[in-house]
Formats: sequence, C-alpha cells, structure tokens
Amino acid sequence: MAAIRLYELAGAEEDRRFSPYCWRIVMALKHKGLDFESVPWRFTEKDTIAFAGTDKVPVLVDGEAAVHDSPAIAAYLEKTYPDRPSLFGGKEAEALSRFFVDWTDLVLQGALFRLVVADIPPLLAPIDEAYFRRSREARVGTTLEEFCCGREAKLDALGQTLAPLRRTLTHQPFLSGRTPAWADYTVFGAFQWARCVSPIKLLAENDPVYRWRESMLGLYDGLAAKAKGYPV
Amino acid sequence: MAAIRLYELAGAEEDRRFSPYCWRIVMALKHKGLDFESVPWRFTEKDTIAFAGTDKVPVLVDGEAAVHDSPAIAAYLEKTYPDRPSLFGGKEAEALSRFFVDWTDLVLQGALFRLVVADIPPLLAPIDEAYFRRSREARVGTTLEEFCCGREAKLDALGQTLAPLRRTLTHQPFLSGRTPAWADYTVFGAFQWARCVSPIKLLAENDPVYRWRESMLGLYDGLAAKAKGYPV
Repeated sequence: MAAIRLYELAGAEEDRRFSPYCWRIVMALKHKGLDFESVPWRFTEKDTIAFAGTDKVPVLVDGEAAVHDSPAIAAYLEKTYPDRPSLFGGKEAEALSRFFVDWTDLVLQGALFRLVVADIPPLLAPIDEAYFRRSREARVGTTLEEFCCGREAKLDALGQTLAPLRRTLTHQPFLSGRTPAWADYTVFGAFQWARCVSPIKLLAENDPVYRWRESMLGLYDGLAAKAKGYPV
Repeated sequence: MAAIRLYELAGAEEDRRFSPYCWRIVMALKHKGLDFESVPWRFTEKDTIAFAGTDKVPVLVDGEAAVHDSPAIAAYLEKTYPDRPSLFGGKEAEALSRFFVDWTDLVLQGALFRLVVADIPPLLAPIDEAYFRRSREARVGTTLEEFCCGREAKLDALGQTLAPLRRTLTHQPFLSGRTPAWADYTVFGAFQWARCVSPIKLLAENDPVYRWRESMLGLYDGLAAKAKGYPV
C-alpha cells in the first residue's frame, strides 16, 4: 500500500474523477513526484471521511496525518516534502497563490458552474444524484436545467471572466512562469472539472487559455488528458 | 538632482497625483528605498515624454535608462537594484504577480472607473479636461455623468468584484503575505487613484479590504495617506 492515500470524488463510474479541488491535489502530488493511492469517494459517503474532521474531499492521508481542504493539503505537502520540487517557489509565491484559490473558487468556478452543473446528475450513482440535485437546486433556487439555460450568454460571460487570465497567458506560458506550479493547478482544476462532466466547448482554439489548458492536460504523461471525460 | 526621475500624472494642482499606474511605481521605489525626483506631467504633454517612446506615464528615467509601462519599470528596478529589498520575492512570485496586474487593469479598475470617472474632469487643467472628456466619452459612448449614474448598483458590483480579494485578505495581512510587495502596490494603486479623485466611500470599515487599504495608506510614513485626495 502506498504511504499516501487520496480520497477523490467519483461519479457512478469509479474512474470519473471530477472534483476541481481533488484535481489540484492530484497535480500537486505529481509535481512533488509522490506516489499515492487514489480512493474513490461519493458525495453521500460522509461517514467514510469523518475521521479527517470533514465531509468534503479531497482528504489526504499520509501516515498519521489526515489533511483536508486543498490549500491546506498543498501547504502540508510543501512543508512535509521540502526536498521535492517546490509547489510554490518560496513564501511570497505561496502567499500570492492564495488569491488564485479565491479567484478560482468564487469567480471562475461560478462562471463554469452555470454552464456545466446540469450535466452532472446523469453521471452520478442514483443515491448521489438525488443528493446532488436536492442540495444544488436549493442553492440556486431553481432546477439545474433552468439554471443552465441560455448557454450562449453564459459562454460570453465566461469569456469576460477569463479576460485577466487570458492576458497573463499572453505574457508567459504558465501563471507561475516558465513551468507550472500550484496556481496553475488550482485554475486548471476548474477546467478539468468541466471537461470531466460536460461536452460543452468552453474555449476557442486561438485563445491563449486554450493553449495553456492543452499544456496542462499534457503534463505528467498526459494524466489529465487521459482521465475519463470529454474532448475539449 | 536625484539620479532617478519619475514622470507622474498630475491634475490642475501639481500635487494631485492620481494615476493608479504611477502610484504602483511610487510605492515600488519606496519599497526599494530609492530616492527619486517626481516630475508632474499632464495628459496633453505627450511631447515631454516622447523621448521614452511612449505617450503615457509612468516614465522612469534612471541615468541612461528610460523605462515606461509599470510592470516593465518594476522588473527594471528589481533587476537593477538586486541588493535592495525584493519587489517580488523570487521569480515564481514575479510571474504570479502578472495576474494581479491584469486583474487590476481589466477588472478592478473597470469597476472603479464606472464609479469615479465623472469626478475627474473638474480636477484637471482646462486643456486636459477637454482632452480627457473627449477621449473617455468616445470610449464609453456617452457622457461621463451618464456613465456614472446609478452609483448604488455600481457599488454593489464593486463589492462582487472584490470578493476574491476580500477572501484572500481574511487569510493574510497582505496579498504578498506578512509584508506588502508588488502585487499589493498594484492593487492598491487602483484604490489610491479613486481616493485622489473622488469623495465616494467605496468600502465599509468592517471589510478586510478596508483594513488592508488602511495598512497600505500608512506605509512609508503615511505617504499615500498624506497625498492630496479625499478621506476614505
């Protein structure tokens, strides 16, 4: 058994791993060159991860340590494995990375959620589907299908949302510079989530964000590109 | 004469310095502990800075070097004065900082522009006022006063825009961590621009962004707080 276990959100199919937060950590573990065992987990399996003091994945178990919340896991990995490639590139970069987490959580994923959330229920096991629909429809105040209608306008809004990311990626290949790091994994997790659950085309091929996403999909022997999902 | 000269945008009053881009560089020079001579410059004085190959400030002149564009000036200062306190904290942090520039230029300053731009013309010399009104009204397609109406809705929109910044600042005192650096100066420049031209109250006192702005205003012996403008 690998020393590190990662509890990851899965759909009805065990290999449909679609949590943006889990993808951040998968990429971070690869960045660090750490082997890990991936444990599929479903929305309604709250009891399975209660030992870690949370009801959400990712949960990372490393020997005696159980860590949840993706930025906390990233900080844990950086501190615990300082001799591996740095996830941040110094304490200033680690601090700056926090804004990428918050922008992704509050802005980017919000714009994507409106586009893809209605595609998620059919991918879930029945018990999870009922839970997901009930909890998300309570949050948005309507059916998921109603919430996601008008895709053209929502794609336009996504295009606006991506404006600063797009401009940054005209200056440099990755958010972190010449090579990717935690900020890139954080933002990429959102796109990978969308790719795993929805066939919708989010980006034009001439978009610098598209080119960056292609680079991210190709990292670590095409790990993210090979994951179960839709072509981009 | 100081070795470094900085051309800075000024209003009719020579000491009303209100360019967000110039404020970034003023703070960066202070961060580096570099003395400089500030040269007031007005919108219509394009000829005065043509030697630097631009028609916009800030322009920094340091011996033989003339540098324009605020991120390029920051990079120049970091490279030229490596023994002074780092503006970034390493190359990864410098790369990550680019997104803060692009987010500030495209998102934050856009949200502020809609709130404060109509307050600017009365602060300008007559020749500049005519230029400013003509160029900005062509850009927005209406009068500045019309463009700025409905302040309550625009303040709400600003509040939404600030959501990721607000969350980051609940985690740490500055964007760059325990102490401010280039990313903080970049975002702060936008708030200082607003403060220099408009009496509008942008932030509630219990907002983490307000507390951060207070810290920024107090840096370097209250340099930004003492600059000509309105109370926040």
